[in-house]
Amino acid sequence: MRSIRPQSLCTKFWRISSQPQRCQFHKRAFSISVGRRTSTVDMTEEDLAKVEIDRQRLWGELHKTCEWGVGERWGENPTDVGMHRLALSDDDKKARDWFVAAVQNLGCEVKIDAMGSIFAIRPGKKAGPPTYAGSHLDTQPTGGRYDGILGVHAGIEMLRTLNDGNVETEYPVGVINWTNEEGARFPISMVASGVWAGAVSLEKGHNLKEVNGPATQKSELERIKYLGTTEASHEVNPIGAHFELHIEQGPILEASGGKIGAVEGVQAYRWYTVTVKGRDCHTGTTDFRNRSDSMLTAAKLILHSHNKASEMGCLASTGILNLKPGSTNTVPGSVQFSLDMRSKENSKLLELEEVLRAEFPKIAAGDVVDCMNMAGTKGRGCEVEWRLDTDSPATKFHEVCVKCVQESAEAMLGTASTSLVRKMTSGAGHDSVYTSGRAPTSMIFVPCRDGVSHHPAEYCSPEDCGNGAQVLLGAVLRYDRLRAERAN
Amino acid sequence: MRSIRPQSLCTKFWRISSQPQRCQFHKRAFSISVGRRTSTVDMTEEDLAKVEIDRQRLWGELHKTCEWGVGERWGENPTDVGMHRLALSDDDKKARDWFVAAVQNLGCEVKIDAMGSIFAIRPGKKAGPPTYAGSHLDTQPTGGRYDGILGVHAGIEMLRTLNDGNVETEYPVGVINWTNEEGARFPISMVASGVWAGAVSLEKGHNLKEVNGPATQKSELERIKYLGTTEASHEVNPIGAHFELHIEQGPILEASGGKIGAVEGVQAYRWYTVTVKGRDCHTGTTDFRNRSDSMLTAAKLILHSHNKASEMGCLASTGILNLKPGSTNTVPGSVQFSLDMRSKENSKLLELEEVLRAEFPKIAAGDVVDCMNMAGTKGRGCEVEWRLDTDSPATKFHEVCVKCVQESAEAMLGTASTSLVRKMTSGAGHDSVYTSGRAPTSMIFVPCRDGVSHHPAEYCSPEDCGNGAQVLLGAVLRYDRLRAERAN
Repeated sequence: MRSIRPQSLCTKFWRISSQPQRCQFHKRAFSISVGRRTSTVDMTEEDLAKVEIDRQRLWGELHKTCEWGVGERWGENPTDVGMHRLALSDDDKKARDWFVAAVQNLGCEVKIDAMGSIFAIRPGKKAGPPTYAGSHLDTQPTGGRYDGILGVHAGIEMLRTLNDGNVETEYPVGVINWTNEEGARFPISMVASGVWAGAVSLEKGHNLKEVNGPATQKSELERIKYLGTTEASHEVNPIGAHFELHIEQGPILEASGGKIGAVEGVQAYRWYTVTVKGRDCHTGTTDFRNRSDSMLTAAKLILHSHNKASEMGCLASTGILNLKPGSTNTVPGSVQFSLDMRSKENSKLLELEEVLRAEFPKIAAGDVVDCMNMAGTKGRGCEVEWRLDTDSPATKFHEVCVKCVQESAEAMLGTASTSLVRKMTSGAGHDSVYTSGRAPTSMIFVPCRDGVSHHPAEYCSPEDCGNGAQVLLGAVLRYDRLRAERAN
Repeated sequence: MRSIRPQSLCTKFWRISSQPQRCQFHKRAFSISVGRRTSTVDMTEEDLAKVEIDRQRLWGELHKTCEWGVGERWGENPTDVGMHRLALSDDDKKARDWFVAAVQNLGCEVKIDAMGSIFAIRPGKKAGPPTYAGSHLDTQPTGGRYDGILGVHAGIEMLRTLNDGNVETEYPVGVINWTNEEGARFPISMVASGVWAGAVSLEKGHNLKEVNGPATQKSELERIKYLGTTEASHEVNPIGAHFELHIEQGPILEASGGKIGAVEGVQAYRWYTVTVKGRDCHTGTTDFRNRSDSMLTAAKLILHSHNKASEMGCLASTGILNLKPGSTNTVPGSVQFSLDMRSKENSKLLELEEVLRAEFPKIAAGDVVDCMNMAGTKGRGCEVEWRLDTDSPATKFHEVCVKCVQESAEAMLGTASTSLVRKMTSGAGHDSVYTSGRAPTSMIFVPCRDGVSHHPAEYCSPEDCGNGAQVLLGAVLRYDRLRAERAN
């Protein structure tokens, strides 16, 4: 399928061609507007407010497509069923086929790249890299119906709404279904957007093997016929801007009564393995002074990492802990635990690491550090080793995009909306992390019940799904307007 | 083999017959003394001091028998090799055969009970339940050369020394090799002394299956021909007193410069499984206030158990910890950990438990208890459940026996000995725990390097082995003298 080949570079951020483009598939062109406004540039806030998505249609379509990859039932309602739609599986193929048919029916051009990511493009008045709504249709093995899926469906609902209202955009708009965002079956998450952005090589992406089996991403792309001909490259297949609607996957919005999160970026995280070396000894025959208790020491370090992260406005947590030898009456001589530390700011995260790297050995030696070792008996001490496993620096989303999301949300929620719209930092990674390095990007968060995600019982209410899709549409139109204004 | 059948009950603690008894095996009788003293009653401290063991012979014999059940080499010296002599194995049979031959050569009667424990008896001037030196010849799978083995060899060296010096005791003395003290192959430790004491049924002892295989203790006793005809019973086969020489298996003597531990008892211990229930959540998307972090909570509880045990003069430790689901970027919703708590006093241990049972839920809820929750962020809290897995009350050894050990040690070590002899509580269980309920009992501890035991590199120096055996001999002779004095 044909890529848009930009002919001139108009601004730092996007390229546009000098001639209006025609969709190669359905020959429907928007060079002549049939809407009330020929241009988003001329739309007032009132006009924008009238472009409303069909919330019921969105909800119905989303749950209809959940027939492909049915997971665990967790409740009594028809939609109280989780998802099991692993990337490039037969179920994923069915969802992809539905996606392609749906967007072609809406008059879109479809491009599939070498990683199987699908780009649906609705032409604008002018040519240029499209403003996309992007997310993913693959799920965790025991996932829910909203993570990723909501973002793609909201994108399609956006296209339907624009068609229904005969709204013409200045530049093309579109929807992306990114391949294997979850990294569950093929264990690199956001791998296709990573290849597109140049952060992961195509070779690595293609050769990535499934967790329990011999297939690679390439062999499965071939099998399900989604190995596209478009180069998986931000240079060859550029994005004008990327907006991603997603459930928050955390409890912050819900707990604070917020309705929309205008996501300013993704926090930095670093993953470590900390090893505490002590000495095995008998729990009965060794007094506290003669022990090198690696489990007791690990407990102090885990607690201290929490205390220090709290103090510095960061996050820290331990999700894996293994000890040896593992007997009730043997004081363990060795403990390894994971340490996941996060912060909005790279510098803050490095500062936290520096403090802990300096203080852990002191605590392990029995010295008093803050409230550690204030009580208890000083033993013979332990040794501490650190290993950095993952380093993911902070991502800052594009200010203009964040502003579009915020204004769109405030417009939808009305005058009392200030407290309902929260500027947020995403705790988890998304495809938007990779797009943000190559194109203006922001995300829209909506609450999910109890912050539960990656679980069959993940739930986002019809109201919140609709809110998110409405804000997505408004943000894309606002951005299109700004883009045209800037070009003029 | 014939059991001694006591004809009259002389004291609360032991039974003696009115007639001198003859050994049924070698017809060597001690009714006519050929030693310098006919009675331990008449021996002065000076006389006792002259009855000295042969330290070189002890060391040589001990290591000679370690050819049966050779374990891992850990050093360059010929004796730097660990042991692998599981109870009732072919190697254990060879060690038993050597034991029986050795004590028969020394003129002893041999009785084997229904649990395979071997009782060697050297007649005294009067009949009665013997004063025994008892321990075990079986080892851990990766054990050392001193745990148990030293105690049995010291008993045999005692018999040799008495024979060499023509020393006659008032009452019979002997040596016991208890079956399966370790509980490594057949997983109940001290099982044969337990059956003897009536704490474990013979049926349970016989039917106990090996850890990795179909054999039972009974089938293996039959196979190696050590299923004895003497009832395994403290009533049918009584013990006059029980002294056990053992390596400390802890670092206290070595660290304090002590040479001999006069063991006053065995501490109480209770084993628990503590379950902390929180809620799985994403480490990146969930702020501290919205977490129910079971690992962080477990860290606090483990640390608090240490602090509180320290404060109350008890011990507490965690040797097993399992968490779920076990992923770096998921805050664990469930943690289970073992808690091993010990104290010299039953009441103290129960008091510690009561305090922790009251305080753990408060700490898990985020309340400030001592220095817990003084820093950090209060989350949504976790729930705590306790399960008691093992309850082993404290054992108090017999004051007279402890006094005999202490006096024997002080006599051997000389006038400067006060700081070299320490009254101690055993942290680990031994066969003496079971004998102490049925006969006057005490133990003698000698240092082992770095407190290491249940490990190939377990080590007790020739000097310490000799010291222990000398104190054992002295304690048995002192006890024999006291016993005769009391009878008069």
